[in-house]
Amino acid sequence: MLFLVRMDVNIPHDLPDAQAADIKAREKAYAQALQNDGRWRHLWRVVGEYANYSVFDVGSNDELHTLLSGLPLFPYMKIHVTPLAQHPSAIA
Amino acid sequence: MLFLVRMDVNIPHDLPDAQAADIKAREKAYAQALQNDGRWRHLWRVVGEYANYSVFDVGSNDELHTLLSGLPLFPYMKIHVTPLAQHPSAIA
Amino acid sequence: MLFLVRMDVNIPHDLPDAQAADIKAREKAYAQALQNDGRWRHLWRVVGEYANYSVFDVGSNDELHTLLSGLPLFPYMKIHVTPLAQHPSAIA
Amino acid sequence: MLFLVRMDVNIPHDLPDAQAADIKAREKAYAQALQNDGRWRHLWRVVGEYANYSVFDVGSNDELHTLLSGLPLFPYMKIHVTPLAQHPSAIA
Amino acid sequence: MLFLVRMDVNIPHDLPDAQAADIKAREKAYAQALQNDGRWRHLWRVVGEYANYSVFDVGSNDELHTLLSGLPLFPYMKIHVTPLAQHPSAIA
Amino acid sequence: MLFLVRMDVNIPHDLPDAQAADIKAREKAYAQALQNDGRWRHLWRVVGEYANYSVFDVGSNDELHTLLSGLPLFPYMKIHVTPLAQHPSAIA
Amino acid sequence: MLFLVRMDVNIPHDLPDAQAADIKAREKAYAQALQNDGRWRHLWRVVGEYANYSVFDVGSNDELHTLLSGLPLFPYMKIHVTPLAQHPSAIA
Amino acid sequence: MLFLVRMDVNIPHDLPDAQAADIKAREKAYAQALQNDGRWRHLWRVVGEYANYSVFDVGSNDELHTLLSGLPLFPYMKIHVTPLAQHPSAIA
Amino acid sequence: MLFLVRMDVNIPHDLPDAQAADIKAREKAYAQALQNDGRWRHLWRVVGEYANYSVFDVGSNDELHTLLSGLPLFPYMKIHVTPLAQHPSAIA
Amino acid sequence: MLFLVRMDVNIPHDLPDAQAADIKAREKAYAQALQNDGRWRHLWRVVGEYANYSVFDVGSNDELHTLLSGLPLFPYMKIHVTPLAQHPSAIA
Repeated sequence: MLFLVRMDVNIPHDLPDAQAADIKAREKAYAQALQNDGRWRHLWRVVGEYANYSVFDVGSNDELHTLLSGLPLFPYMKIHVTPLAQHPSAIA
Repeated sequence: MLFLVRMDVNIPHDLPDAQAADIKAREKAYAQALQNDGRWRHLWRVVGEYANYSVFDVGSNDELHTLLSGLPLFPYMKIHVTPLAQHPSAIA
Repeated sequence: MLFLVRMDVNIPHDLPDAQAADIKAREKAYAQALQNDGRWRHLWRVVGEYANYSVFDVGSNDELHTLLSGLPLFPYMKIHVTPLAQHPSAIA
Repeated sequence: MLFLVRMDVNIPHDLPDAQAADIKAREKAYAQALQNDGRWRHLWRVVGEYANYSVFDVGSNDELHTLLSGLPLFPYMKIHVTPLAQHPSAIA
Repeated sequence: MLFLVRMDVNIPHDLPDAQAADIKAREKAYAQALQNDGRWRHLWRVVGEYANYSVFDVGSNDELHTLLSGLPLFPYMKIHVTPLAQHPSAIA
Repeated sequence: MLFLVRMDVNIPHDLPDAQAADIKAREKAYAQALQNDGRWRHLWRVVGEYANYSVFDVGSNDELHTLLSGLPLFPYMKIHVTPLAQHPSAIA
Repeated sequence: MLFLVRMDVNIPHDLPDAQAADIKAREKAYAQALQNDGRWRHLWRVVGEYANYSVFDVGSNDELHTLLSGLPLFPYMKIHVTPLAQHPSAIA
Repeated sequence: MLFLVRMDVNIPHDLPDAQAADIKAREKAYAQALQNDGRWRHLWRVVGEYANYSVFDVGSNDELHTLLSGLPLFPYMKIHVTPLAQHPSAIA
Repeated sequence: MLFLVRMDVNIPHDLPDAQAADIKAREKAYAQALQNDGRWRHLWRVVGEYANYSVFDVGSNDELHTLLSGLPLFPYMKIHVTPLAQHPSAIA
Repeated sequence: MLFLVRMDVNIPHDLPDAQAADIKAREKAYAQALQNDGRWRHLWRVVGEYANYSVFDVGSNDELHTLLSGLPLFPYMKIHVTPLAQHPSAIA
């Protein structure tokens, strides 16, 4: 089941650099683990913004919320989720 | 080069049924041809809406505009394009 | 799996009365059938508006889209879907 | 009398952790007490957001405001209330 | 129980004049009857707009929706309802 | 001459408690004095929000601005003013 | 007493040309009469738009609404009114 | 003196084809004449939309309004104008 | 050449009082000097807000930007500029 | 391949002056280098705002994102990118 997710990151400028670097490193590892297990299907940077559009493939809404709220950057992101369905003209 | 595209369809209710059906049939053929040649990479329905999110893979902005403005439903759609880039945490 | 759905109805004022009445009668039957089978869990009127908030309980995004796009009023509604998850403080 | 309520939580990142934990613990107890007495009818997490949609069943606007303004997280939330009415197609 | 209601009127310019005049006459009678029975407490014109802000005093959300959806201009209005409560600094 | 005024209060969370309490006490006294002299005609709480809708009855725009900018909470509020006129269907 | 007023004109494209021309001629005469008597103090075109910003000097909200609702183009305009006050740094 | 202008075209679907074609042909000639005389400096298509961003170089606001309101498509466009100034980091 | 300018002031609450007072004093002197030389034609307070609408009469966009960016409050203001043109119904 | 880019700068008022000055100096050098090599084609100040509209000429979305995310002011800017295409009425 697919969901389009937009994430906008906003790290407070007074967060200590070491803390920010640690969060980002954990975020990267987390994102790559989920991509490897197939649930984080696509991850694209929005040109010019500290933001991404992603596509998740999960079994339920609860599973998606668990994945998203576990992101190390979750407290510093604005996230919007759009549920997707099969399109009648899609060939895949 | 990837672009996320959202299309919202709004066919006037007084368009004759036969004309609408013809446009939709041509739209479907057009969409499937572009998916087959690899330039319309993804096509998803937005749940509950007469709308889609799509990902296009094209060589230039001009090529993308030519594809989109050639859609049979183009006069009846609101389209918004977001350019995408490689994400540093993406594994693909 | 639960989804909150808001539907705003906008029937064109030049739609013939008989046609509008027919659509509304079919909409009512459709809504009641889905409530009876348990998939349309809640249906509330928004006070002062020709609109409703509903909660659907379905197995997938595709199932929800099929239900919503099958609504007789679908061509005359603006629909917005919000996926819901279990809240950690909920007792049910 | 039913009301749909959306709450978006935004805890300042420089609030001490112990204080935030205490507020959240009291929020949970408060939410569960109101669910148990039947006035907080539904409590759902919005997928991907630190937010919820809730349905309250109260006797008056004043009662609802008293409940909401008493939430331990009230100073850190944006709340929007939508009054609901019986829908003519609802079977319950 | 008080509610602030904003109504924006938008009569289609191709509605026959006689029909529009009839609707407006019935609207006026309806509004005055509700003011006389005390449920439509205030009715103010928004300066420069074909719109009003009103305050209703009703026993329930359902009663308010019944009143508003019975307005002869209801099909031609955009209505937004805000529930009001006692303010701690109010002297009345 | 009547004006509808919406005030949204946003006190910074790092304002010392004693200072906030002092401002609120002065705000309450100020609001009650203006209600007693008849210029602050109505004061209602917006359900679920730290906000109010008010109706002022003043002789001029300048008088209204003087009253509003003199509010002890003025530096911490977002205020929006809507001028009101006599409605042709109003009985008062 | 001054008010800033923005008016956006939107004449339906199927209004007969003669009727539109008549309305515009009456609008111009009306606007010039009010400028001559001093109540329509300023009238500026918004560059690139069929819109104007105006400043009115009237004795009351009711007087302003009477002037604006009497505009021949009133049924075809979106109007927004902002009340103005003396600025403490203004020299006039 | 430079201005950025965005134009969104919206031709009503019931405008006769011949009339639309005539307007577009005159629009093209008009646009090319102004580009040739140097006042319409840049004209770019917004990808995926029936819209353009343009840069005009004119001597005054009045001159710009005269140019824009003379566009054959003017009655069918939404136009927004942003005045531009020399940027301190620009090398030209 | 006329421009309508809206300025919304937002001074951070933790700016030292003496610094804020100094900025405001310099702002007032600056505003009065520009009014005296005729370029800041009108300066009105928006009722209920720490904001103003102003009309500037300058020779070019660059001149306007120089004036506005030189305002002592410039770093604490949100400014929006609308270019104005002669209105065909204006008598002045 | 052309892109219109709007950048709005928002430097936190508690950033030390020396640090802000350093960032701005590096931003200027960076902007001028990119203008000199032809990829930052146009750079205009938005009148009255700490913002610019720019046109970039790059070979790909990835190249544009690399340029924009390398801006010394990037952490303090809100950036929006609009892809541009050849306009059929453009003479260049």
